[in-house]
Amino acid sequence: MPYQYDDQNIFAKILRGEIPNDTVLETEHTLAFRDIAPKAPDHVLVIPKGPYVTLDHFCAEASDAEIVDFHRAVAEICKMIGAGPGHGGEGFRAITNAGENGVQEVPHYHLHILAGRPLGPMLLMR
Amino acid sequence: MPYQYDDQNIFAKILRGEIPNDTVLETEHTLAFRDIAPKAPDHVLVIPKGPYVTLDHFCAEASDAEIVDFHRAVAEICKMIGAGPGHGGEGFRAITNAGENGVQEVPHYHLHILAGRPLGPMLLMR
Repeated sequence: MPYQYDDQNIFAKILRGEIPNDTVLETEHTLAFRDIAPKAPDHVLVIPKGPYVTLDHFCAEASDAEIVDFHRAVAEICKMIGAGPGHGGEGFRAITNAGENGVQEVPHYHLHILAGRPLGPMLLMR
Repeated sequence: MPYQYDDQNIFAKILRGEIPNDTVLETEHTLAFRDIAPKAPDHVLVIPKGPYVTLDHFCAEASDAEIVDFHRAVAEICKMIGAGPGHGGEGFRAITNAGENGVQEVPHYHLHILAGRPLGPMLLMR
């Protein structure tokens, strides 16, 4: 097991109910809640309930059921916040950061869904 | 069907073999190839073979098998390019843009995997 999960990270505490959250959607394997420091009018974090550190960890070791549940939840959240272009929404960006180069802040896999304003270039060039 | 797929987009042409690509990985339902205008030393695009316009479209309408295949491929790609922190990599960022606010350029769902340099803040603030 190359990935070491730290169960004291803030999302682990949210999942255990030790810290409150502004829930958008909860399913069997997935929790989505609003970011406390939103970078756009809609800024939702989607996390698996299982102990996965990064996207690649989740994709490698989560069960098929966890992976499908997570992504069905993503579709539902986009619809709930009115972001999906196919449902009349103006669009969104989804981002996940992993490790040092990705500037990951919490070591529990989380997908940022950002919407409600034009989000600009996807990356700073250099 | 609220999403209208345009089968003349460049990724549709790549999938039909009408335009060459620098393939990183191909599976039953997924193709990954290097971006022709890379924004980082490693810049891989992962796309489903099915006709999905955006992430939320893919998550809503793809089969369980397509969703699982796509994400198992993501894990494999991160390992192949040496980006996964759990395998000694220095990390990565994965991004997908949807619609106008997301500044989506090609109307076929694609996940950018960016690695090989520090990627900076995940979003320009304003």
